[in-house]
Amino acid sequence: MKVKKIILNESEIPTRWYNIIADMPNKPLPPLHPGTLQPIGAESFSPLFPQALIEQEVSSQKWIDIPDEVREMYSIWRPTPLYRAYEMEKALGTPAKIFYKYEGVSPAGSHKPNTAVPQAFYNKKEGVKRITTETGAGQWGSALSFACNHFGIECEVYMVKVSFDHKPYRKVMMNLWGAKVFSSPSTHTEAGKKILASDPTTSGSLGIAISEAVERAAMRDDTKYALGSVLNHVLLHQTIIGLEAVQQMEKAGELPDIVIAPFGGGSNFSGISFPFLRMNFEQGLKIRCIASEPASCPKLTRGVFRYDFGDTVGMTPLLPMFTLGHTFVPAPIHAGGLRYHGAGAIVSQLLRDKLIEARAHNNVEVFEAGVLFAKTEGIIPAPEANHGIATVIQEAKKCKEEGVAKTILFNLCGHGHFDMKAYEDYFSGKIVKHELSDKEVANLIAKLETPEIPA
Amino acid sequence: MKVKKIILNESEIPTRWYNIIADMPNKPLPPLHPGTLQPIGAESFSPLFPQALIEQEVSSQKWIDIPDEVREMYSIWRPTPLYRAYEMEKALGTPAKIFYKYEGVSPAGSHKPNTAVPQAFYNKKEGVKRITTETGAGQWGSALSFACNHFGIECEVYMVKVSFDHKPYRKVMMNLWGAKVFSSPSTHTEAGKKILASDPTTSGSLGIAISEAVERAAMRDDTKYALGSVLNHVLLHQTIIGLEAVQQMEKAGELPDIVIAPFGGGSNFSGISFPFLRMNFEQGLKIRCIASEPASCPKLTRGVFRYDFGDTVGMTPLLPMFTLGHTFVPAPIHAGGLRYHGAGAIVSQLLRDKLIEARAHNNVEVFEAGVLFAKTEGIIPAPEANHGIATVIQEAKKCKEEGVAKTILFNLCGHGHFDMKAYEDYFSGKIVKHELSDKEVANLIAKLETPEIPA
Repeated sequence: MKVKKIILNESEIPTRWYNIIADMPNKPLPPLHPGTLQPIGAESFSPLFPQALIEQEVSSQKWIDIPDEVREMYSIWRPTPLYRAYEMEKALGTPAKIFYKYEGVSPAGSHKPNTAVPQAFYNKKEGVKRITTETGAGQWGSALSFACNHFGIECEVYMVKVSFDHKPYRKVMMNLWGAKVFSSPSTHTEAGKKILASDPTTSGSLGIAISEAVERAAMRDDTKYALGSVLNHVLLHQTIIGLEAVQQMEKAGELPDIVIAPFGGGSNFSGISFPFLRMNFEQGLKIRCIASEPASCPKLTRGVFRYDFGDTVGMTPLLPMFTLGHTFVPAPIHAGGLRYHGAGAIVSQLLRDKLIEARAHNNVEVFEAGVLFAKTEGIIPAPEANHGIATVIQEAKKCKEEGVAKTILFNLCGHGHFDMKAYEDYFSGKIVKHELSDKEVANLIAKLETPEIPA
Repeated sequence: MKVKKIILNESEIPTRWYNIIADMPNKPLPPLHPGTLQPIGAESFSPLFPQALIEQEVSSQKWIDIPDEVREMYSIWRPTPLYRAYEMEKALGTPAKIFYKYEGVSPAGSHKPNTAVPQAFYNKKEGVKRITTETGAGQWGSALSFACNHFGIECEVYMVKVSFDHKPYRKVMMNLWGAKVFSSPSTHTEAGKKILASDPTTSGSLGIAISEAVERAAMRDDTKYALGSVLNHVLLHQTIIGLEAVQQMEKAGELPDIVIAPFGGGSNFSGISFPFLRMNFEQGLKIRCIASEPASCPKLTRGVFRYDFGDTVGMTPLLPMFTLGHTFVPAPIHAGGLRYHGAGAIVSQLLRDKLIEARAHNNVEVFEAGVLFAKTEGIIPAPEANHGIATVIQEAKKCKEEGVAKTILFNLCGHGHFDMKAYEDYFSGKIVKHELSDKEVANLIAKLETPEIPA
């Protein structure tokens, strides 16, 4: 009988996270103070993050130990299974071998608890009473609520309005784990009020929600902020995915030619791909790593590399990123987790150095991909995950055309149990195709006022 | 570091199902023809079921081989993990060791695919084009849709009205796997029309939905019917749960003193408990097995043992069962999967022979239990599963009072991702407590007209 999935024991949960910065030929550029345009020191982050996370944010140490308390909580759902997608291969008639790592088995339903748990842990250890955050589709907010509940920390979530309205049950899930949830922009913060005054019917965006959550944390001594993607320490925690996948692919006797993952701010993609990029760095391999983004929010494929704010209002330091501009509000696609204007500093540097690739898919194409996956493999993917599947299908078809049996690995980052409305909209033809035109992209870039980076 | 879960490899998926009939001291009584009141032969089932399933239904062979095609499909989610509930133990301050088998990892989210897959497989093998069925909360309908989609069979689901209205996304899930879903009672069948004529605002029941699905299958040559619980072959397939759990408890170095599972028609409870009852039969152990039912539908704890119909209209043979009467429509509690008037023949005989126990919990109590579980263990349980958790909590508290460290195992039969409305209702105090009064039970039993069984 064919082996469908490769599993690991709890004792095989990695004991260290992998910090790719140690191996990068060009290190990410530093964050700048928006006033002075000078690099800012680690201490500037201390109103927002506990010391341990700031140290991880700026660390150049290659391996960072995972605390036992974190590994113990990981063991609720980790190691996650690695599957061979036999049925999808058959349906595509491809000679490619397709594998996927399934992160939807976590209680919150995605890869997000991989960083929510250590973030809550380090905050708790440093006596923080409350954590604020933003959430798009609700995956990150659920994950942080789950983690905060375990460590006995209050959790306050600003949820992007379009998702808050589309996905009421994500809110109940967060409430069940004890979190307070607000529709963003809200009248709770100065940032929210300002946005609402200028555009009362806005659908919201991750950038806006970040402004709100940061403002609340900055205001209170006992409160810190947590981000679910973009930052170095978040990407670091997510490498647990790829570190497990490396072990599992070895057990399967395979090495991927291509590693694929959806791309919002970078945590999903970095999580699975960095441990394979490490093999490129250390062993001179040429594993291709492809980030899959929405055509309605194509910062990697069509944005520019320059300094920009992480949030909409401009409260964060300036970060070096591929961006479409921090004031850009992406179309209200169902993959709320990917509606973010920019990419994290590490991923942006890797893309600039052509060490990774990117590809964009429109929102109709990704649902076609997701439905094919659900009908063949059985598991119903989150709309975010469908972006990666769309790239997988393109690569698998290319293998068929060229008669080449490549090995493809992708990150099935979450299940779609809270996204049935999206599938219903797709089946009833209610999904409007969103894809930025060349003119729209040019306009967005022309509007950018933040500092350029010399070539 | 504590080991949180015991996992098995795909190669350890059992190769045979366990048929408890072989070991029962008193075999279940035969089904009767409602007209002649004579035992009916296996051939009477052939309009509804494929030959292979009828053979399993009447088999007294102790072990039945699982086809490779079924084991291969099982491997999408099986073996399922067995957890130690350390955090819930801590919260309860109990000396008891609590373990749970987690069946929510299946793509449909519950234990139901364990029987949906072999049922679809045997139907396919015998050339069946279409399968009809009923579903309560949607767990069974989703499972059968998932299985039929894989084997290329059409699937038609009659979903109990109260659940159809409460849980629209279960419908989308079934549609995603290609099934047609109707609110029951419907105007699609004579049975449905008859019920609607007498009670146009009925909330529906599993008994009514069964009448509809059976009628549709009986009408068409290329169509068969599938049931998600009650019947012997369904219980047989579910023993995969307990067979794995026996291996896992052995690996954990433990033997349960008590095995607990929710009870609707019997598939959940039988699935986990029969392989442990086998140890009682073969080794003279005294493992207690407790079935947890809703106080609004207490057939095991307060019903009578006699012949009754499996459906509301009276289309099935008469079956020996603990029942509250086939016309009883249970209160519209959120645990739709447990709203069934009777218990399967095997479980009824075991209860009559005092080889198992039963306990009832009201619908407020079970949500208290489920919320405690979600807050401690992290996983959000289905409302059906909460019934088992309520019994676990009672037993764990008893251990605390008595200072005894018993080992308790329960079946966490599904996740609550499609039940967030139920939790929302619970949090907002909208759940009305349902519990049958003595007078209501007496009235139900007085109404029974089907044949009694001599003591």
